[in-house]
Amino acid sequence: MSATVYTESLKLHQKHQGKLATQALLPVKSKEELSLLYTPGVAEPCRVIATDPAKAYDLTWKGRTVAVVSDGSAVLGLGNIGPAAALPVMEGKALLIKEFAGVDAVPIVLDTQDPREIIATVKYLAPTFAGINLEDISAPRCFEVEEALQSVGIPVFHDDQHGTAIVVFAALQNAAKVVGKEFSKLKVVVVGSGAAGIAISRMLLGLQCLAGTCETVPKHQRVGDVIVVDSQGALVAGRSSQNIYKQALAGLSNRQQKSGSLQEVITGADVVIGVSGPNIITQEMVRSMAPQAIVFAMANPIPEIMPELALQAGAAVVATGRSDFQNQINNVLAFPGILKAMVDGRLKKIDLSMKYAAAQAIAQLVPKPTADKIIPSPFEPNLASQVAKAILSNI
Amino acid sequence: MSATVYTESLKLHQKHQGKLATQALLPVKSKEELSLLYTPGVAEPCRVIATDPAKAYDLTWKGRTVAVVSDGSAVLGLGNIGPAAALPVMEGKALLIKEFAGVDAVPIVLDTQDPREIIATVKYLAPTFAGINLEDISAPRCFEVEEALQSVGIPVFHDDQHGTAIVVFAALQNAAKVVGKEFSKLKVVVVGSGAAGIAISRMLLGLQCLAGTCETVPKHQRVGDVIVVDSQGALVAGRSSQNIYKQALAGLSNRQQKSGSLQEVITGADVVIGVSGPNIITQEMVRSMAPQAIVFAMANPIPEIMPELALQAGAAVVATGRSDFQNQINNVLAFPGILKAMVDGRLKKIDLSMKYAAAQAIAQLVPKPTADKIIPSPFEPNLASQVAKAILSNI
Repeated sequence: MSATVYTESLKLHQKHQGKLATQALLPVKSKEELSLLYTPGVAEPCRVIATDPAKAYDLTWKGRTVAVVSDGSAVLGLGNIGPAAALPVMEGKALLIKEFAGVDAVPIVLDTQDPREIIATVKYLAPTFAGINLEDISAPRCFEVEEALQSVGIPVFHDDQHGTAIVVFAALQNAAKVVGKEFSKLKVVVVGSGAAGIAISRMLLGLQCLAGTCETVPKHQRVGDVIVVDSQGALVAGRSSQNIYKQALAGLSNRQQKSGSLQEVITGADVVIGVSGPNIITQEMVRSMAPQAIVFAMANPIPEIMPELALQAGAAVVATGRSDFQNQINNVLAFPGILKAMVDGRLKKIDLSMKYAAAQAIAQLVPKPTADKIIPSPFEPNLASQVAKAILSNI
Repeated sequence: MSATVYTESLKLHQKHQGKLATQALLPVKSKEELSLLYTPGVAEPCRVIATDPAKAYDLTWKGRTVAVVSDGSAVLGLGNIGPAAALPVMEGKALLIKEFAGVDAVPIVLDTQDPREIIATVKYLAPTFAGINLEDISAPRCFEVEEALQSVGIPVFHDDQHGTAIVVFAALQNAAKVVGKEFSKLKVVVVGSGAAGIAISRMLLGLQCLAGTCETVPKHQRVGDVIVVDSQGALVAGRSSQNIYKQALAGLSNRQQKSGSLQEVITGADVVIGVSGPNIITQEMVRSMAPQAIVFAMANPIPEIMPELALQAGAAVVATGRSDFQNQINNVLAFPGILKAMVDGRLKKIDLSMKYAAAQAIAQLVPKPTADKIIPSPFEPNLASQVAKAILSNI
């Protein structure tokens, strides 16, 4: 990645003092306008909402606005840089939501990294917004935070988990078509067990348990098996040094309960999905996979294996998280449409079937996938509308 | 007030789904723009802010954005209608801040009325904004909330208190000129001891104690005396049923420690300022005041005494809170400029001398006050800029 993009980006941020603003939808140039938009006229929408709180969707910006909330604990590849330094990312995300989905979005960074305090704050903010996009909150805290917020009356969606999982799912469906393998028989190795790794694994296994409610999907929507690998090797029931989320996943994945290193468990796998760090996957590992291997190396900015090395080692389909290679797996394909569905449908939560519907919609935007193109571009016309429509037609 | 303004206001709110939106300052139409405004380019402003958090003012919307925060416990004349029903007011306030001061503003309503939880939430929100306007939080909770938030690194300003006090102070300075009385000798009765009544009294007495720090102003900037009256009569040291804020004020006001009803203590007063409820001030009371009486009857929508009745009873200058009478005392004259000062000056707090500077600036916009015009119109050109300039030239 050239250094220019960084200096240019800094210049742009400086010039515009960020990149998002608020906008008056109506002018206030006269006493009459003031009395309609503020006192005394504003008392009337207040009274109507006091009688029926759901009317806030019709009479205020709540009906078209979401918040992007972070504590700055796991920002991009930068790690725990804190709330102030995370604000450019949240403002960028809010900008993309507005530009790609036409949904108003407010970036909010919180001066706390205590899960209970984050939970309380988001709960208190809920009457202001139609939905919340949690962002860049480190694992395993993000799981606790998201779970606790499923009953606040508006959807709370952690994009690093589900946005990523949805796009990976879409990409993998199309990649399976390219290599002529049945999706429901794929043996997948997921490298990394942070927010993205765990969410991808859960979605590929067709399982979501949130706030005590578990959902599953039909068998043809799940892969054959997933083995999740962290820095200590494969997650397997009873292994020590696994947090509660890894323990739960260990019991649901890895059917044959193989233990061992990435090198050991990747042998014979159809798919490897990296959401970990640079250069962790070697050419030797790719060579040990089943024929027509699928390699998603999504670490940013340096992938688990460079695409040319994966292809040399025999991989049939390769994707990364980077915009300068083909097949960029980026959750910008998913989150604008998901947030649009939240506001358009006045949803209470995003359930598992909605996530599958979103993944299907994204996959279907590439009707004839090839090794070079398994997923649509973020600039695909109507992408967000298609995703929102798929989610809402599924209710 | 005609019913039309209510039905028209409701229609407008319905048509536009509120009145405020977010706006992208830059388009995202290409891969290149995406990489500058989001990943990977956005990592650079993040890194710069991580090294120096103050750079968030230069590189993000923090440097031009404030929040308007309420718990919906004391909204307009509507009372405790809760957060959802308060949102139209907060959105309206944010709209006025944008329109009158060019400052971006985000309305936020909180699903809690517990002061400790409000304090915690606003504290956690602080890294996102350059300042916070607290709004429509009931007394005496508002005092506790504001005090506790004076050390969060950005100014937290409760407009119902200080915005009102600043505009009353400006109006009273000019009213004193009109009747030819010396400001520093005025005997003032304040009717009502909620957020506005207490803040007006404190400012007229030239005293502010916030978070353990007390400030005073030179004698010529204070009135001669203030007697505050609530539903039980005059605040006086040792009176029972006075909360801690009333007790403190009782000791500082009412020099002669008169007790008694409004009717009793208003006799001989130069000024009465009503921030209580409809029709509480009678013509007989106005007649008992000193000659050339000044009457500010600010209850909304029905004032403490109707202007024509006050004038009939001999008042020399009359003001209300209503736009359909002359001399409308409305804090829209103050808050846009105060919030502009917060962002332009990157202030840490709004101190007492800044509030006086703001009041002076507003008063001076009517260089030759008359009984019919003691304060400027909200549409006075450059009003917010003048107020902000006065505050910042005072640092």
